[in-house]
Amino acid sequence: MKNPEIKIVGAGLLGTSLGLALARQSIVATLEDQSRANLRLAVEYGAGVESGPEPDLVIVCVPPDLTADLVIEQLKKHPAAIVTDVASVKSKVAQEVSQALPEHAHRYIGSHPMAGREKGGPSAARADLFFARPWIITPSTQSSKAAVDLIRDAALRLGALPVELSPSEHDQAVALVSHLPQLVASLLANRLNEGKAEQLGLAGQGLRDTSRIAASDPELWVQIISQNSASIAPLLNQLQSDLAQLSQAVSAIEQPGSLAKIHGLLQGGNAGVARIPGKHGGKSTNYQVVTVVIEDAPGALASLLTFIGEIGVNLEDLNLEHSPGAPIGLVELQVMPEVAVRLGEQLVANGWRLV
Amino acid sequence: MKNPEIKIVGAGLLGTSLGLALARQSIVATLEDQSRANLRLAVEYGAGVESGPEPDLVIVCVPPDLTADLVIEQLKKHPAAIVTDVASVKSKVAQEVSQALPEHAHRYIGSHPMAGREKGGPSAARADLFFARPWIITPSTQSSKAAVDLIRDAALRLGALPVELSPSEHDQAVALVSHLPQLVASLLANRLNEGKAEQLGLAGQGLRDTSRIAASDPELWVQIISQNSASIAPLLNQLQSDLAQLSQAVSAIEQPGSLAKIHGLLQGGNAGVARIPGKHGGKSTNYQVVTVVIEDAPGALASLLTFIGEIGVNLEDLNLEHSPGAPIGLVELQVMPEVAVRLGEQLVANGWRLV
Repeated sequence: MKNPEIKIVGAGLLGTSLGLALARQSIVATLEDQSRANLRLAVEYGAGVESGPEPDLVIVCVPPDLTADLVIEQLKKHPAAIVTDVASVKSKVAQEVSQALPEHAHRYIGSHPMAGREKGGPSAARADLFFARPWIITPSTQSSKAAVDLIRDAALRLGALPVELSPSEHDQAVALVSHLPQLVASLLANRLNEGKAEQLGLAGQGLRDTSRIAASDPELWVQIISQNSASIAPLLNQLQSDLAQLSQAVSAIEQPGSLAKIHGLLQGGNAGVARIPGKHGGKSTNYQVVTVVIEDAPGALASLLTFIGEIGVNLEDLNLEHSPGAPIGLVELQVMPEVAVRLGEQLVANGWRLV
Repeated sequence: MKNPEIKIVGAGLLGTSLGLALARQSIVATLEDQSRANLRLAVEYGAGVESGPEPDLVIVCVPPDLTADLVIEQLKKHPAAIVTDVASVKSKVAQEVSQALPEHAHRYIGSHPMAGREKGGPSAARADLFFARPWIITPSTQSSKAAVDLIRDAALRLGALPVELSPSEHDQAVALVSHLPQLVASLLANRLNEGKAEQLGLAGQGLRDTSRIAASDPELWVQIISQNSASIAPLLNQLQSDLAQLSQAVSAIEQPGSLAKIHGLLQGGNAGVARIPGKHGGKSTNYQVVTVVIEDAPGALASLLTFIGEIGVNLEDLNLEHSPGAPIGLVELQVMPEVAVRLGEQLVANGWRLV
């Protein structure tokens, strides 16, 4: 099978990364960008060339707000090509495209590679950005199987894991698992602005984890939230109702029933978090945790992990814990329950210090 | 200086861990527990003995709801001893003690070692539980310096890091940095109960981090929240007001001003999260992230870290990322900005695969 001719519109982080990844598969993409500097930089990095043959597939990699317009432009410009995009909200783009170009909408199929970095621009690009990440493809009822296969094939070439969902299924799913957590983390972190420095000095791993994604780019997220507001709004309403009940119970703690309400929410949280699948998309597993004290010096963690590798134990997860004021670190090793005891015993027998 | 005579009331996780830690310092604590089985188990583990001399210091290590009663009982029983406790809320206990025993309240000084595990009971105890963790001491205006020094000395012997705060300063600080994040994580995780399994299958690291602590023990947390409701309630009210504004903006996304409101909240989140101090309680630092692809096999992470140790780079933090369906892992290495470029170059030059 002949390699498809691919054109990438938008030489930012995602577009340039796509070009680099395709280049590794000996596919030379054609690149296009409004910014002359971005385009030259991407070409110089080896992400593609400035002009090429008529494309089989156009991938639009621009900010969410510009996506629909550029998809429409590319459908007109390349009447035989399949056009896709990489925006993280899908219904709105599909709807605008089918309103603007009803006769061409069957050639547009949305996709959402679930990959990104905290930095943008072509210079942040990485050929492996999509490697082992889900790549959601969102066909409409009009989409041809051949068109879906073309995108699925491109995703697989980049090492991504294709998943098929309808645009609205996609948008509802990301509203719950991505957009709601983002807003909740931002709401929590926003409250920290009124805390004193001494209070924040007592922050532990719980606060750090819960607020980490509040550091995300506000410009990008305001676009995402505004495009997916229809799926996010009901979730925020439900959250508001849960919070109102909780707040009322905490404010009137002596009222009968208030503790049961708080307890019910905490139990609901236990049940909800247990529904998130574990590593590798498998079933959620309760790993055992073995915590080891190490020195905070180059090589300390490595020698611990070398030892663990030597005794043939596979780590399921690992966290470094921050220890305010101490020149040591605590390493939480998560392992399958059946190896936890052996791991602990062998560590202690070899002079490691467990917590 | 003679070692102090120490009595521990409550042979659960914290009490037994304290006894084990003291035993390492050649201090044999006297243990007491209502549960005959817990007490025997703790003694057999080597955490102390069942009867001993009149104590200089009594440490009450029982669930938050029982703490005040047992502190009062111990103040009466040992009229010369200093009494402390380890409960995670401090004002309420201090208040109950000073109401019940005004003439003895100067001998009670609260403390809060910021340590714990996901499991309870004497069998989960660890001598290193308090090592390198903050141990907050909450004297009242009546407390003598000698009494504070006795507790500070005990904390230092266990390797903990003593910090002094008033009871109300403590309770306000933990309301913000510990209790609010717990409730926010539970609120978010509770919403997942209405998601479909396919939706949760798309969960990434953001959702995992934001909801992780929602797995905490509801029985313990309902006690903590009810005792600290006075400090938590105003924070929940402010959160409610922020959420109401956000929800209104998302529901009426076409209204003028709605995007600015959402953007303002996201920016506030950026600012808030930047206020959390970095590793070792130092100033918050923006580490550079270098992400490496490794095989999901024993020893793979170790050989990466061995290499990093060999080139003399110190890791500030490390995260393993979960890759649904893939037999590989992504390792996020966080390092000081000045070594990031060298680390990346040397990794690539030695055959490591960066993302």
